Amino acid sequence: MQTTAVALEATTALDFDDAVARCREELAEESFGVLTEIDVQATLKKKLDADVEPYLILGACHPPSAHRALTARPEVGVLLPCNVTVTREGGRTVVRAMNPESAMSLIDDPEVAAVAEEVGAALKRVVTAVAEAS
Amino acid sequence: MQTTAVALEATTALDFDDAVARCREELAEESFGVLTEIDVQATLKKKLDADVEPYLILGACHPPSAHRALTARPEVGVLLPCNVTVTREGGRTVVRAMNPESAMSLIDDPEVAAVAEEVGAALKRVVTAVAEAS
Repeated sequence: MQTTAVALEATTALDFDDAVARCREELAEESFGVLTEIDVQATLKKKLDADVEPYLILGACHPPSAHRALTARPEVGVLLPCNVTVTREGGRTVVRAMNPESAMSLIDDPEVAAVAEEVGAALKRVVTAVAEAS
Repeated sequence: MQTTAVALEATTALDFDDAVARCREELAEESFGVLTEIDVQATLKKKLDADVEPYLILGACHPPSAHRALTARPEVGVLLPCNVTVTREGGRTVVRAMNPESAMSLIDDPEVAAVAEEVGAALKRVVTAVAEAS
């Protein structure tokens, strides 16, 4: 698993659909609910008649963490939920999660940073588990 | 309207429901679709039995911009869609949009930055219009 300024990311040997299913399982295991889903491929086809590779965005939320962060700073909501994406890129299946520590650092608040660290650790476990699945 | 590192934000004289309706109108005017909606108040009540003030997250997407940014860098999806939030905070109605220039600067890419600048200008018009409505 690789950590960039924007994402926690890894490739997985799973095909697209299996990777999506495994993301859902691992998120549930870490007590994240999936509040939103965007089928980017279908959306861009419908809106622009553009053909892109499979791309799904799952909007994951750990309610106690969201509540704690929003109580500290209401503007946290512009960055919620924490997205987990599954894509096909040149024959590889790639899974990414938003890097919450990095994103939430845009809000300079120690309580928000503490929540982001916990959520980031959980999302790293999710991405790692999907990467290591086969 | 105030620009912070994470958000474009303003208060509005509108009540919560009117502010939400006006956000939808102004987003449509700027060719954004609303792909996701999260009623944060209802979600935290259901999941945690927590009582918080009204809080709605609208996930806004300008498809040509999303396509352009995702073509440049697939990891853009961890920060999509661009959230517009409406909240009640101590008797005030507050509208915010994600600051896309700031958020997308986590991805060091000139094409992504160019798209973020255009989307940011459009979201500033949305927030300003809702702030000035009465």
